[in-house]
Amino acid sequence: MMNYDLGKGEYENWVVSDVGFSPDTLGKSESIMYLGNGYMGLRSSMEEPYLEETRNLFIAGTFNKFDEYEVTELPNIADVTRLDIRVDGERFSLEFGETKEYVKQLNLKTAELSRSFIWTSPKGKQLRFQFRRFVSLENLHLIGKKIEIEALTDPVSIVIDSGVNAQVTNSGSQHFHEGEKRIFDKKFIQSIQTTIQSKIDVVVNTAHKLTVNGNEVKNNPLMVMERRKVWLQFEAELQPNDCLSLEKLTTVHTSRDKDLFVSRDNYSLESLREVSLANLKAAHARGYEFEFLDSKAAWEEKVWGKYNLTLNSEDSYDLLALRFALYHLTVMTPAHDERMGIAAKALSGEGYKGHSFWDTEVFILPFFIYSNPEVAKSLLKYRYHGLVGARQKALENGYEGAMYPWEAAWPTDGEVTPIWGSVDIVTGEQTKIWSGFIEQHITADIAYAVWQYYKISHDQDFMDNYGYEMIFDTARFWASRLEWNDDKQEYHINNVIGPDEYKEHVDNNAFTNHMAHFNIQLAINYYDELKETNPDILESLQGRLNLADSYLLWKDKLDKIYLPQPREKDLVIPQDDTYLNKKIINLEKYKNQTKVGSMFLDYNLEQVNEIQVTKQADIMILFLLLENKFSQEVKQANFNYYEPKTLHDSSLSLSTHAILANDLGHTDMAYSLFRRAAEIDLGPAMHTSDAGVHAASIGGIWKSTVYGFGGVRMLDGKLRINPRLPKHWTELNFTIYWQGSPLHVDINKDSLKIKSEHASAVEIEVFGKSYTFTGETEIAYRQ
Amino acid sequence: MMNYDLGKGEYENWVVSDVGFSPDTLGKSESIMYLGNGYMGLRSSMEEPYLEETRNLFIAGTFNKFDEYEVTELPNIADVTRLDIRVDGERFSLEFGETKEYVKQLNLKTAELSRSFIWTSPKGKQLRFQFRRFVSLENLHLIGKKIEIEALTDPVSIVIDSGVNAQVTNSGSQHFHEGEKRIFDKKFIQSIQTTIQSKIDVVVNTAHKLTVNGNEVKNNPLMVMERRKVWLQFEAELQPNDCLSLEKLTTVHTSRDKDLFVSRDNYSLESLREVSLANLKAAHARGYEFEFLDSKAAWEEKVWGKYNLTLNSEDSYDLLALRFALYHLTVMTPAHDERMGIAAKALSGEGYKGHSFWDTEVFILPFFIYSNPEVAKSLLKYRYHGLVGARQKALENGYEGAMYPWEAAWPTDGEVTPIWGSVDIVTGEQTKIWSGFIEQHITADIAYAVWQYYKISHDQDFMDNYGYEMIFDTARFWASRLEWNDDKQEYHINNVIGPDEYKEHVDNNAFTNHMAHFNIQLAINYYDELKETNPDILESLQGRLNLADSYLLWKDKLDKIYLPQPREKDLVIPQDDTYLNKKIINLEKYKNQTKVGSMFLDYNLEQVNEIQVTKQADIMILFLLLENKFSQEVKQANFNYYEPKTLHDSSLSLSTHAILANDLGHTDMAYSLFRRAAEIDLGPAMHTSDAGVHAASIGGIWKSTVYGFGGVRMLDGKLRINPRLPKHWTELNFTIYWQGSPLHVDINKDSLKIKSEHASAVEIEVFGKSYTFTGETEIAYRQ
Repeated sequence: MMNYDLGKGEYENWVVSDVGFSPDTLGKSESIMYLGNGYMGLRSSMEEPYLEETRNLFIAGTFNKFDEYEVTELPNIADVTRLDIRVDGERFSLEFGETKEYVKQLNLKTAELSRSFIWTSPKGKQLRFQFRRFVSLENLHLIGKKIEIEALTDPVSIVIDSGVNAQVTNSGSQHFHEGEKRIFDKKFIQSIQTTIQSKIDVVVNTAHKLTVNGNEVKNNPLMVMERRKVWLQFEAELQPNDCLSLEKLTTVHTSRDKDLFVSRDNYSLESLREVSLANLKAAHARGYEFEFLDSKAAWEEKVWGKYNLTLNSEDSYDLLALRFALYHLTVMTPAHDERMGIAAKALSGEGYKGHSFWDTEVFILPFFIYSNPEVAKSLLKYRYHGLVGARQKALENGYEGAMYPWEAAWPTDGEVTPIWGSVDIVTGEQTKIWSGFIEQHITADIAYAVWQYYKISHDQDFMDNYGYEMIFDTARFWASRLEWNDDKQEYHINNVIGPDEYKEHVDNNAFTNHMAHFNIQLAINYYDELKETNPDILESLQGRLNLADSYLLWKDKLDKIYLPQPREKDLVIPQDDTYLNKKIINLEKYKNQTKVGSMFLDYNLEQVNEIQVTKQADIMILFLLLENKFSQEVKQANFNYYEPKTLHDSSLSLSTHAILANDLGHTDMAYSLFRRAAEIDLGPAMHTSDAGVHAASIGGIWKSTVYGFGGVRMLDGKLRINPRLPKHWTELNFTIYWQGSPLHVDINKDSLKIKSEHASAVEIEVFGKSYTFTGETEIAYRQ
Repeated sequence: MMNYDLGKGEYENWVVSDVGFSPDTLGKSESIMYLGNGYMGLRSSMEEPYLEETRNLFIAGTFNKFDEYEVTELPNIADVTRLDIRVDGERFSLEFGETKEYVKQLNLKTAELSRSFIWTSPKGKQLRFQFRRFVSLENLHLIGKKIEIEALTDPVSIVIDSGVNAQVTNSGSQHFHEGEKRIFDKKFIQSIQTTIQSKIDVVVNTAHKLTVNGNEVKNNPLMVMERRKVWLQFEAELQPNDCLSLEKLTTVHTSRDKDLFVSRDNYSLESLREVSLANLKAAHARGYEFEFLDSKAAWEEKVWGKYNLTLNSEDSYDLLALRFALYHLTVMTPAHDERMGIAAKALSGEGYKGHSFWDTEVFILPFFIYSNPEVAKSLLKYRYHGLVGARQKALENGYEGAMYPWEAAWPTDGEVTPIWGSVDIVTGEQTKIWSGFIEQHITADIAYAVWQYYKISHDQDFMDNYGYEMIFDTARFWASRLEWNDDKQEYHINNVIGPDEYKEHVDNNAFTNHMAHFNIQLAINYYDELKETNPDILESLQGRLNLADSYLLWKDKLDKIYLPQPREKDLVIPQDDTYLNKKIINLEKYKNQTKVGSMFLDYNLEQVNEIQVTKQADIMILFLLLENKFSQEVKQANFNYYEPKTLHDSSLSLSTHAILANDLGHTDMAYSLFRRAAEIDLGPAMHTSDAGVHAASIGGIWKSTVYGFGGVRMLDGKLRINPRLPKHWTELNFTIYWQGSPLHVDINKDSLKIKSEHASAVEIEVFGKSYTFTGETEIAYRQ
């Protein structure tokens, strides 16, 4: 059972708690309280094992393919979290005996997970337990654990098995050779494993320190090795009030570590073994508390002190949700390595296999562009490196340029969307997943993101070296993708999936067509601009992009692209060529369900295809991205038409609707949609996050706050801030980066205060009026 | 907690029971009550899952290698036994609530596993459960399950998830591609998977029938597919006294099935799919009870009615143990396919990976030679097919002829012993396993077994087609293996491991040298004999075995082989060149431990090597195999010397000692050793069988009964019966096959009655006197 109010004093509104143990809802806190640092993600499973647990450790970028039939995925790394504890010979588990004062919590500020309770064993022995754990933001390779067990009533003997368990799989698929296991000096456990296809070496080192009442227990533990497992067995006898403490520090390194090896050419397993073991020994010598303080300080410096995001709401949940979002945006993002992207389920679960979707560019990147442009750049460079795979995909599909994969893993992998999904209730076979073939808008989404980054950051260097090439090559894809319709004398884009994945094989999905058009338009604009300002760049790209011919094609085709427009009678834009002709049914049974996809208990996808039902924001996300192209009236009419038909069965849907609702002046509805969006992971429902947190939805929490209530947008290269706080809120503060320097924004109900760190004047637009200022300015407004 | 007395009426002394549920001792009944039919082995895990469970289904012969670093092994097949049951929303588990009248039992006569109890849920709802299960001996592909749940006190809703789970691994190694999963007609689940290296297709089909009070529940269950999993969710509402019954019939087929496909040339996956589904549908239509009766009838006909093994003991455990042995000898043996051997842990666990050792020839084959010669022949043909791998191994090691692998899998695989074992407590590394390199006596053991089979069965056809070739080619290996010692002017066999695996890299292990000598002698004898009687066979073998030259070598070397002899002072035969010079320590701490290998908590193997300590019968097994070569005095002296130094850390040890003790006239000691041997799996210790039953030890139960107390041997081609019943026994009866026809043997304290089915006279020797008879004879004797 979730609780949001247990943080006190300096930790008020910083603590997420689960205050009732249940073996049936383990996934919730495992997922939403997972620890990480972008390098790795460690699911917060309990130490003691439970049947329904999911124990995961992922390291960003270590993709491997189990066999030729599966797609590459982030493999589950050997586990170091499990402890098998026996109290007087009885297996310790909260399923037995009695548990009091149970609380498991994540302190967002310090990024420490803790769990404590008083447990009475079936035999009646009472003990106090405390478990603590962190993944360091200072030493990206380090996992710290510390447990304390105090005997409260009786003398007890404690036996703890702890080590490295490499029997873990990804739901049965084993990505590693067994590898080498070793115990140095009867103390330092080392496991070295290599992925079976991508041949990445992963080294896990772990060491323990056992004390009773602060005195180190010196007798050697029993050493055990079994297949894919190595562990130590510790024993201690406790008298009443004795307190046992076991620290377990672990380091994890791989042959992909950029901080260690620039390339595989100067890599050796021997050096990896030594470096990683040395790292462990140093951490072990310093101990849990010191290492934890270092990590806590890093969180203060790199996260909380940097983003300055606060708000004042009648309901403190809102602030907690924002902090929860910033916490997760930090731990999910491999900011240390531009060859890695953000996974749809972050690093918190097997769901979506660690792959990157448009979720990054459309729902998460805005946060980084405005709050931490260096990280935004790294994420865009990931897509730049992905041009290799995108060009390969275009080639394979008979197109030109760069056709980005719907799901991306290692940049050179290309398309990695799996082909078969869940059961088709009609045929009894697996449903075919078409996204990897025909969900193509991602290519334009990435070009759009490059443009956004550029316009907000003014990072010309990035554009010169990476951005223009991406925009040109994506435009080249679209130009080759367009299909000439002779009857209508216009270009169509047929047989696609738009953002609404409940409509497969549609023609002229409005979002896709408009975004493709935008992408080509961008390319033309930049071509024209560069011709004036920097023809050398055009020159250097000419060879591999055939730019001059491409430019002619773009110019020729641009205005002939069919762009679905509002119908005259009701201003509704057809989502695609056939949507508005499909059957309308009563969707009450399927709307507002905690469990998404409920419609598939009654229909298969083929049948859903024939109904006016939408999975998620489709036209709405078009309105958000190309805001200036549509009038308020058109937006309102389409909101009214489509929202009732939208099941919000994707976590990408609610935050977009929240922002749109706010834009349209429906602040109460916007707040209610924001709350629903902010509850997808953090809320009280105990099963929504079982397969992992929803990265895009977490980006959406920030987005619906700063884009939505804060009203921040970049429009035509200009910064606009139209705040509209919900009635529960009195204040909203954040720092954004605009053209390379921070702006500190303080919003309250009737004024907007901005402190600029820019040397020169900054221009912003607020409710249609333009303001130019240096230093600090305060602008009164009325909602 | 084990109970042996619950069989009543016709099932008296037929039922093995575990009468106390404990989550800590699941391995015991999973293993010793495992079901099988030689085609497959199904570990008897509970339906509802437990943390410490091991859920295994193995199909004989389906070997696969996970990667180039592991050895091939029997992969764990997708599970169909697990059921997730919810009672009014609570997960059913015996770890919760209260359980009364718990009993899990295996009826050896019918080969049905059952489990029943009354369970009160944590919420206080009381229900009666009964689970039944069999693996058919009539339809080798069929697994039947039936569960009954009766509501005793309250209305309850029952939800059951049941299907096929292919997430299973071998301790983390995944042997299968995910493959295809399918539900036909919302009812018949099919999973088709292929092994990743050996490319064996495995099809699992399953179907359910749900009734309440005998009326079939017709509403369709929910269908679910996840990664490597497919299942149905059944729901039923029970009123007090309502009884739910769920039958689940499963068929398992593979592309290696000999009954379906003679070779892979006429194999198609489509036909496998159809045949297996048709088999399932037929079984499903007939239902659990009919299929079970068919299987029960097959057990009566093929096992109990054939072997006629009974005894009368003061302690009924002895008869149960014998029946337990016959049950297991039946379920472990792939009698249906001569390309398959018996696994050291039978088909009951991952231990030893499904590999065949000398265990088969020395400890199990005697049972089949005397009781079911057809099966013995099939097992020897497995070794004949194994000549391919054996010749390969010889070649790789620089020898000639056939050097049998220490561990064997598929006949053409050759040596498959793994190279790394458990932890070395001194170095912290894994201990190297040398058996695959230097434990070489198995080659002579197999030749010995061929000879035994021939002499007992008089199966000339087998010899002509297979046996002679095996004896000649093994002799060729030994002739090339012998090392000339110039000092001593004799042939040595250096750097080996004998049966005592606690002595590695020894020279002239007595057992090895004597058996090699015997092997060569055999070859010479048969060469001489064939030259007279059937030179065509020599001719046909001449080409590939270079027989004429080999024969000269054999003749030249035979008498120069060093055969360790009893020392003059005490008649002790040195186990090897250095054993008798090693340190003698007090072994009290390590002898008679339930958990074997206890010495390795204090020493590593290198240290154990330097102590006069023996893992298992070494000289003793030599005495048993080459009985006529050693006097009673020598046997007694060596028993006295070595037994106290023998830890019996191998399950192969006790039965040999039991027989030897009986031969030496120590009937009480023999009985006590027999009991210990018969308790290795069946006895009250709850952890000895966790990794699987001990196939050789089970063969040893029969052997110490019929060889030991029955005194049956083949000596120099003649049948000898010197019975010596323990004082607890008044009667022992069994049928043996001698030269192709049965002899029914009834032994009591002072007489031996034999009923011969031979047409002509039979000659036997009893206590030194020869008897020739037809029909029935009774011979008085005095123990």
